[in-house]
Amino acid sequence: MGKEEKEKPVVGIDLGGTKILAGVVDGRGKILGQAKRATKPEGGVETVVERMAKTVREAVKGAGLDAGDIAAVCSCAPGTIDAERGIVQFAPNLQNWENVPLARLLSEALKLPAFIENDVNLGTLGEYVLGAGQGMSSLVGIFVGTGIGGGLILDGELWSGWRGSAGEVGHTVVLAEGPVCGCGSRGCVEALASRTAIERDIWAGIKAGRASIIPEIIQRNGRQRLTSSALAEAYAQGDPLVREVIGRAQFYLGVLVGNLINIIDPQMVVIGGGVTEALGDAYLDPIRPVAYQYCINKRGARDVAIVPARLGDHAALLGAAVYARRRLAG
Amino acid sequence: MGKEEKEKPVVGIDLGGTKILAGVVDGRGKILGQAKRATKPEGGVETVVERMAKTVREAVKGAGLDAGDIAAVCSCAPGTIDAERGIVQFAPNLQNWENVPLARLLSEALKLPAFIENDVNLGTLGEYVLGAGQGMSSLVGIFVGTGIGGGLILDGELWSGWRGSAGEVGHTVVLAEGPVCGCGSRGCVEALASRTAIERDIWAGIKAGRASIIPEIIQRNGRQRLTSSALAEAYAQGDPLVREVIGRAQFYLGVLVGNLINIIDPQMVVIGGGVTEALGDAYLDPIRPVAYQYCINKRGARDVAIVPARLGDHAALLGAAVYARRRLAG
Repeated sequence: MGKEEKEKPVVGIDLGGTKILAGVVDGRGKILGQAKRATKPEGGVETVVERMAKTVREAVKGAGLDAGDIAAVCSCAPGTIDAERGIVQFAPNLQNWENVPLARLLSEALKLPAFIENDVNLGTLGEYVLGAGQGMSSLVGIFVGTGIGGGLILDGELWSGWRGSAGEVGHTVVLAEGPVCGCGSRGCVEALASRTAIERDIWAGIKAGRASIIPEIIQRNGRQRLTSSALAEAYAQGDPLVREVIGRAQFYLGVLVGNLINIIDPQMVVIGGGVTEALGDAYLDPIRPVAYQYCINKRGARDVAIVPARLGDHAALLGAAVYARRRLAG
Repeated sequence: MGKEEKEKPVVGIDLGGTKILAGVVDGRGKILGQAKRATKPEGGVETVVERMAKTVREAVKGAGLDAGDIAAVCSCAPGTIDAERGIVQFAPNLQNWENVPLARLLSEALKLPAFIENDVNLGTLGEYVLGAGQGMSSLVGIFVGTGIGGGLILDGELWSGWRGSAGEVGHTVVLAEGPVCGCGSRGCVEALASRTAIERDIWAGIKAGRASIIPEIIQRNGRQRLTSSALAEAYAQGDPLVREVIGRAQFYLGVLVGNLINIIDPQMVVIGGGVTEALGDAYLDPIRPVAYQYCINKRGARDVAIVPARLGDHAALLGAAVYARRRLAG
């Protein structure tokens, strides 16, 4: 690959169960153009790939470029990915895709080199290269939303494990025999600290007669679901039930961070995702002392930075662009 | 380094709080000679280093060799180690050694290149290169004794973390607010599945009036402590209290293994240490189904081998020899 090729923009794609986001990214991580459309997974693999290709072309056009100006594309996908062979092994959020050769399909549709990786892994890689983790030697990314996912960067490289399923930190047990998780196990961090868990506990409190401004906020917003921003509003107003439930979630997240520091001993832990973004930096303040308290080696423990993610919704897309560039470079 | 130098034996040292074990190890991992003496940490650093040097000389002599035949020495130490700089940062079991430049002191005493690393890390490396983990790409080692330690091999290399304290799997919380651990935290695996935890629960059961053959075995052996072999005898005889308590320890160890597979996704998990050795291979049988049940990605989960360690008391010594050879090779 010549120098010119190296400088060419790449396209990063964030493929989720509801939307496709594509962005043209230059060599310094700047987004030159982007496009978005609904995923419509109910249409099947062919339809989704077609929609992805359309979104990519739109983003390239929006950046004022042609297909020939692009060096490669890389898409994340939610699920278990065989990145080496470019196959989505299993993606429950994409209507149970199984063994879909997504990299090959994308490459054929766009006539470009194409790569894929897991969405949370790429989000972590994005934060590492272009976000909160720049210059670190190792970091763990934790993303808190309806679920809790994670990714590992070790010696500057994404560690995706033997089967491509490393970083499933949300499904580590911290309270054996605790509440049932979406995965069927009990006491996973996800069942204790995700937005889903917070929502479950807030509704249980309200049902049991606890006072809260949550029903009022939801009625005003005209939404059925307890969104991260509704949570943030009630938290900011000091709603006691919301404070208590989120406080418990923060405790378990702190325990998780302590566990991960004891196992991996990274230089940094980056915490992102919908809940973190909605609640702001103050969300992390109660997590840090719990995490450090649980570190077995206290020496330098407080030098392990625990910081908020910086790239927001663009983490996976930018991580995909970084990954494409790394794979092209061999 | 010439080929001849590469073939030279090295000396591995297992430095513990009670004994020093030194072994001369050839290029294929064969122990050519060994020696042992008490550590006597109460004598201070100088005394311990002198005793280590004597033990090394004795082992070399026992192998029918001279100091000139040895390429390097490597010692493990129990505690936090800065392997790069050769410093024992903190070792509670060595009368609280702090910032001891052990590699330099050993090198001066023996006029040989000297290296040091953490004991459990080297035990894991030993199992990886010469024991149960041969040919794997990645593995996690878990050693169950009075405490629970661990080590990580990723892409064939020891991962010791940013501060040199990775692999502290025994101090990960699996039962928040559970029993108090020796480290002061609550609900660590070590407080639920170590020999210390098993002993605590068995005595509590006996004190509460549960029938058990443990008091009889201990009286017969004339020992105060509940040794791993006494546990093994009662377990083999089907003692209901011992079976119940060990069953609980196995459950929590299974949860830990599941957590580690979800975080790191290694190709193999090796379980060793006093309790494992005393109870035999059958000890692992109830651990496997729990571990696999807690794996979030079921695809290929059962291909992650969960196996007993093979090197027994020699794991750290052999790991030290492997480490010395790797450091010499650059």
